[in-house]
Order: sequence, then structure tokens, then C-alpha cells
Amino acid sequence: MPTKEQDFGEWYNETVDKADLCDKRYPIKGMNVWTPYGWKIMSQIDSFLRREMEATEHDEVCFPLLIPESEFKKEKDHIKGFDEEVYWVTHAGLNPLDIRLVLRPTSETAMYPMFSLWVRSHQDLPLKTFQIVNTFRYETKQTRAFMRVREIHFFESHTCHVDQEDAEKQVAEDVEIVDAVCKELCLPYSLLIRTDWDKFPGAYYTVGIDTVMPNGRTLQIGSAHYYSTNFSKPYNITYETESGEHVYAHQTTLGMTERLLGAVIGVHADDTGLKLPPAIAPQQIVIIPIFKKDNADQVIGVCRDVAKQLKAAGIRVKVDERNDRPGSKFFDWEIKGVPLRFEIGGKDIENGVVTFARRDNGEKGTIGMDSLVEGSKMVLDMISKDMLEAAKAKQQGFVDDVPCMDAVDSIPEGRIVRLGWCGCPECGHKFEDKYDIKILGTPYKAENWVGKCSVCGKDGAKPAYAARTL
Amino acid sequence: MPTKEQDFGEWYNETVDKADLCDKRYPIKGMNVWTPYGWKIMSQIDSFLRREMEATEHDEVCFPLLIPESEFKKEKDHIKGFDEEVYWVTHAGLNPLDIRLVLRPTSETAMYPMFSLWVRSHQDLPLKTFQIVNTFRYETKQTRAFMRVREIHFFESHTCHVDQEDAEKQVAEDVEIVDAVCKELCLPYSLLIRTDWDKFPGAYYTVGIDTVMPNGRTLQIGSAHYYSTNFSKPYNITYETESGEHVYAHQTTLGMTERLLGAVIGVHADDTGLKLPPAIAPQQIVIIPIFKKDNADQVIGVCRDVAKQLKAAGIRVKVDERNDRPGSKFFDWEIKGVPLRFEIGGKDIENGVVTFARRDNGEKGTIGMDSLVEGSKMVLDMISKDMLEAAKAKQQGFVDDVPCMDAVDSIPEGRIVRLGWCGCPECGHKFEDKYDIKILGTPYKAENWVGKCSVCGKDGAKPAYAARTL
Repeated sequence: MPTKEQDFGEWYNETVDKADLCDKRYPIKGMNVWTPYGWKIMSQIDSFLRREMEATEHDEVCFPLLIPESEFKKEKDHIKGFDEEVYWVTHAGLNPLDIRLVLRPTSETAMYPMFSLWVRSHQDLPLKTFQIVNTFRYETKQTRAFMRVREIHFFESHTCHVDQEDAEKQVAEDVEIVDAVCKELCLPYSLLIRTDWDKFPGAYYTVGIDTVMPNGRTLQIGSAHYYSTNFSKPYNITYETESGEHVYAHQTTLGMTERLLGAVIGVHADDTGLKLPPAIAPQQIVIIPIFKKDNADQVIGVCRDVAKQLKAAGIRVKVDERNDRPGSKFFDWEIKGVPLRFEIGGKDIENGVVTFARRDNGEKGTIGMDSLVEGSKMVLDMISKDMLEAAKAKQQGFVDDVPCMDAVDSIPEGRIVRLGWCGCPECGHKFEDKYDIKILGTPYKAENWVGKCSVCGKDGAKPAYAARTL
Repeated sequence: MPTKEQDFGEWYNETVDKADLCDKRYPIKGMNVWTPYGWKIMSQIDSFLRREMEATEHDEVCFPLLIPESEFKKEKDHIKGFDEEVYWVTHAGLNPLDIRLVLRPTSETAMYPMFSLWVRSHQDLPLKTFQIVNTFRYETKQTRAFMRVREIHFFESHTCHVDQEDAEKQVAEDVEIVDAVCKELCLPYSLLIRTDWDKFPGAYYTVGIDTVMPNGRTLQIGSAHYYSTNFSKPYNITYETESGEHVYAHQTTLGMTERLLGAVIGVHADDTGLKLPPAIAPQQIVIIPIFKKDNADQVIGVCRDVAKQLKAAGIRVKVDERNDRPGSKFFDWEIKGVPLRFEIGGKDIENGVVTFARRDNGEKGTIGMDSLVEGSKMVLDMISKDMLEAAKAKQQGFVDDVPCMDAVDSIPEGRIVRLGWCGCPECGHKFEDKYDIKILGTPYKAENWVGKCSVCGKDGAKPAYAARTL
């Protein structure tokens, strides 16, 4: 098996396999089976999304998977964006359908005909909804578990607002939601307003949420969109203002997928296996009893008691009582990425401590039996903090500034480029074409940067980031 | 709007609409939108299924929606059973697919090719998995929200075992799981082994789980199946025994759907609206402040404080502070089926009590402020118990015994018939054809009954139940 350094792609695929996060042998390419361990982690990630949605008063809904062709085709840019990558249901039972049905690639065209019925008056706004469902895209590029698949585990929030101002406040709230979730995953990310030619089909603008893989390629882990009235017009989502006018609603969406899990693997795992952030680890602590023949019962008894105390405090913990050598157990749980390992042997019991080993950095130490819960929580918190900091440091190291276009020549593969960009599409395309590199966008939150366009040399350019994407 | 008594079907549809459990205006017949209130109740039901699965060591998985035609057609009876009711994906993007894909109507044919890879040795058994997913059936009969839909919210557990004995123990465990879930829903049910011509396509036998609607028709709310080796043979699910033989695994499944919610509506709701069992009510208690101008702040303050105490004890509670008359608020929450209403006014505060009204039977009473949590839990428990008892009493009243076939003639519509059946298909078909009534099956748990076959008169017949189904 190649190392993460040598061949990220191969390493990634093998890491997913050996941790048993999904089974790729399902007989349709790009549609994998969620095995119990992977699904537990994803469900935990979903629970954070639900927590944030509840805190911001979004209602969970669940819309049908199938969308009639007639509804699907109402917004012109949207259908153009998805025309080549949707699956079509054409038959039911033994007969052809009168109207073909599309498997949702995303749910705008399923939801908005209903929003048109739900939104009547300004009192119905803001309408804030979300769902977590399966969506489908016929990927023609090479598929990769959790990163590029054909059946997607999809979180999508959809909102309607009285005007642009209120809608853009929603985008700002979305950014806070993303921040809260990424913190749980110890994932650094950047927020970039995508170029006009790279925005979501039908959006007014798109804020891309990117993280950086160890090979210097960026991975989009989500996106927030302001739609303006681009969809509310074709789908006729209007409301009556206080003064009795009928006006179109302004809309936003936020989308995230199982790529969040893919990013966790790509950013944190090492050549040994996964490193799971404590917040999403199915087991946060694994306890390995270290015993000889004469003290087995005592040691296992203490291990179970420790587990019981931790469980009562809401920590996810497992005692590995399998009949196997400790070293072999260590190895198994390192592959699975359990953040914290406790070893408890006769000596530890004598000393009134548990010995711990951190998965993130290998550090060892002890926690007193008299402060088990408190001590465990403290170490788990430290692991989270350190994992985020380590990832941040690594990702920041990838960025190079380029004062002018020719300077790109001297930048090696696998780097992220910060250039000056006057904002005109011509300069953007020229840059992208020359270096076969994608402009990811301009910062959503203003950066302290002034300079010239790296392409045309004009003053007053904004910073833009460019990179190869995974 | 007709009453429940007058026209069950119309009443049911209207009750679903006015409680806003789903939106039926989606542009595909039989595919409804789960609105927030309905989805919250369903998610709560799902959480009970997950709790029972965890307690019985089933692992949650998630398999792809799409199944290649080649895999789907491996078990002959199964495909015959579903041939006329599956949706086919034939195109992706702008091109036809090489192999047509079916939207799962149930997941045997998606899972079992993988089980064939997962099960190797007797040590891999039992394999116990489940998933909660969307499945699809092209219903040609009239659709009805939660009861007969084309996109189904589906719970399915799938297990593999060393032999028939272990598999049938699983069916017995399934029955316990069903019992635990139905208790939360205050739903009486019966367990009947279906006739051979009515079992699940591919099953060795099927245990149908039925409840009775107020019009005397039965509704299947779930089913457990013993498959024997009917699927493990075509899908080649074998394991190596301790002695080195390779033998086929024995399989079982348990399936339940959103019909559980449909049953809750049909069994418990009345002409005013829903009556939700406390375990699944999004709000278990609604607090209505009763105030005059001069004590509004005080009353609302007390209501909020009461809510805070109840919330801290894990009770789902809401204070209705809307600017509206109390009577109008009562009405809204009765439609929504909130099990318990608290009214708190100046007098209640003086007396140190809250006044309550039960949704299930309209009874009123008071709970002392000093035993708020305890008292509330007690009343909620009583509601659950009384709802189950009331439903049981009602359902048992529907059954009539028929000593011989002609006696059926004198039984009016909307009754459930207990007949004696020798078990031969001829007698069964003769009975069903003559009365246009379905034999639901013979009791899964033996009943204290001996008699003659109501059709042929032979001795040693078993009891069987027959009814019209919804």
C-alpha cells in the first residue's frame, strides 16, 4: 500500500477499505454500500447538521425523490447545468410513463412548486427548511468513495425571504452553521465566492466551501447560494407585502454531502489508518485490558467499571475483551481511528491510574482514577483542538502569492495560488487556460489585500485563489 | 367534512390535511411531501425502531437505491411478485443505459449479492442488519397518505443465520420488537401467518402484523418473514461450518413503513383531529396562558417557568404565546393531537396548581406546582395506557366466530371473521371467493381453539381470521 505522501489517491482508497467505511463492490459503479462503521460516523455528522438547523429554526421536511420532467425544466440555466448528469425513470411496471421522471440531482425543482403554494404572505417568511436525502448524479469522471459518487448522501437547506437583504443575512447564518460543523470535524476551510462561470446552475452567486487535501488539491465540501429571484420567477413564489403588493421571494440554499467524511479522511488520516475527530468517532475511547493469567478477572472488572463511569458521563467507550494480544488490538483500533486508547493493567490499578495513548499524535500519559471523567473529557478536547490546529498549519502552508501571471511558472504542482484579479472574465479565463488551474473565487470575507490584477496589471484588483481541485 | 363513522376514507384524508402531516399536492400521484409536523412524528417512530435495533444488536447500514436488472431477476418468485410494480431507470444524461436499473421496491436483491461476500464462516453469523430508506412501488390502486403510497418510508431488517432454528428465533425476536414499538404507538395488533398464496414473494412463510381500522377493515402495518434458503441459494450466501462444510444461510426480514403513522391516525384520531400517543407527539404538553391585561406578565412568566422545569425533565413542551383567544388555541392543538393541555391562569397560580385537559378522553384535573414533573409524567403514562386499552377494546369487538361457512352470510360488512380452516388451499380459496373476503392467516401464537373446518367440515381445523383489508 502506497503512503499518503507517495500516492494520495491510492492511499485514500485503501484507507477507506481497511477501516471498512463502505463496500465498493456493489454492482453499480459509484454507488457504494454504507457499512455500519461508516454509517455511524455519517449519522453523527448528520446529527450536528440537525442540531445547527434546530438552533437556527429550520424545519426538517422530506420531499419526493422523483421530479416530473415538466417541473424540472422550468429554470433554463439549472436544467442546462444538470442535463447531462441526471437519471431518468421512463417505465413503471411493464409500461412506459406518460411523463418521464428525473431522480433529483438536488431538490430545487421538487420543492419550489410547493413553495409557491406555501408562501402567500409576508407573514409566511422567512421560510426555512432542510432535508437530508439521497440524490443522484451520473458522474462521468472517475468515482471515489465519499468524494465523487453517483448516489449522494445530501444535506440541503432551502429558504425564502422578503428581500435580498434578508436572504443575504441567511447566507451569513449559513456560514456560521458551516463553521460550527467544521469545528466538530476539526476541518479548516475557506469561503470563496465562485466565479460567474463556476457558480451553481441558476444561482445569483455561490459561496464555495473548500478544504485542502494533502496533495495540495482543494475539495469543495459544501456551498451556500444566493438565488435572488432566479427560481422564484419561473416557479412563481410570490408573497403579498403589508401594502398588498405581490412580489417575488428571494431564495438561498446551503448544501453539504458525505464529502465531509471524505475530507475528514483525506485531511486527518495517516499511513496507519483513520484519525477520527472525537465528536464523530463511534467509539471515542477504547479500553484495552492488559492482564496475565492470575489477574485477568480483576483487570477486566476494572476496565468494565471505568467504561461504565465514562458511559454515564456521555462518552462513547468500548472495552475490547477479545481473546487477542494487546498489540494486535492497538493496531485494529488505530485503523478505525479511535481518538483515545486506554490501557489498564495490574500496575495501573496499583497506581490508581489509566494509561492513555492519543491517536492524533501518539502522545502517552496517565489519568487518575479519581478524575476519570474530567480527565478523559480534557484529553478528548485537547485532541480536537490539536487536530484542527495541525490541519490549519498544514493547509496554510500550501498558499503562494503571485504578484504577476508569469510568476505562476515558478510555482510547483500542488500549490494554491493567491493572485490579484480585476474581476473581468477575460483575465480569469486567460489565467485558467494558461495554467490549467481553476480560479476558486474571491474571499467571502474581505481580506486585507490590495494590489494589481496579476493578468492585466490593472490597479484595484481583489485577491483570488486558484488551485487544482480533487 | 364527514365524521369518522360516516365515511372513514374521506374523514382520514381530511384529518391528515388539517393536521398538516403531509402535502398531497406534489405533482406525482402517491408521492407526498413530508411537512415538518408529520416528519417529526415519523422521525420519532424511527427512533423507537433504532432503539430496538440497537438493543438487539442489529447494525444500521444503507444500501444503494438502484438495483441492476440482472441482480433483481435472480429469485423467480420475487421478481414475479414485483414485476408489475417497479420503476425503471433506463437513461442517464442523454444516453440509454446498457443495463436497466430498478428503484428498490424492497432491498433483498440489493443486499444479498453483498451478503454473499460478507458471510464466509459460521463466525460471521448471525448477521443482523437494518436500514431506513425510501422504496418505490408503482401502486395501481387508489393511493392514500401513509397507507398506500408510491414512495415509501421503509424500515427493513435483514438477517442471516446458521439454520432454521436460529432464524426462527429471530422471527420471535422480531415479534418482540414489533410489540415494543406498537406499545409506544398505543396500537393493538395481531400476528397471523399468511396463507401460502398471500405470503411475501420469495418467503417460506410470512407473519403479517395487522391492526383494525374503525370501519372493520384490517391494515397490515408490518410483516416478518422466514425465507429459509429461498434467497441464499440464488444469491449464493453460504458459510463454512466448524467441520468445513459449505452450507446455505437461513434468512429472515422484518419490514415496517409509514403505515405505522397511518394506523395511529386511523385508530386514535376523532372528528376533532389527531390524538397522538405521548411517545411520538412532537409536543407532549402545550401550555396555554390564561390572562387579563393586568396579570399577563405574571402568567406568561409562570408558564415559561413551568415549561422550563418540564423540558429539563425531558418532556417535550411548548408555551403558546400567540396573540389569540385561548379557545382558538385549544382548537388548534386538538387538531394537532397534543396529548395534554395545561391551562395556567391567575387562579391556578394562587392555588399553586396547573389545570390540565387530556386530549384522549377530555378529562380535566389539576397538578400541584410542587409535583409538576412527577404529576405530568403520571398523567402522560395514564394517557398512553388508556389509549391502548380503548383501542384494544374497540378492535376486539370486531371479531365474530363462524362455525360453518354459511354462517358468514349473516355477518354484516365491516366484521372480522374467525373460522375453522383445515389448511388446504382449496377450502381457503373457496371461502375467499364466495365472500370476497381475504383470509389473513392463522395465529402466529397458538390460540386455545379446536374445531371443524368451516368449509369442508373436517375435524382438527385451526382457527383462521378473515377480513376485508384497507
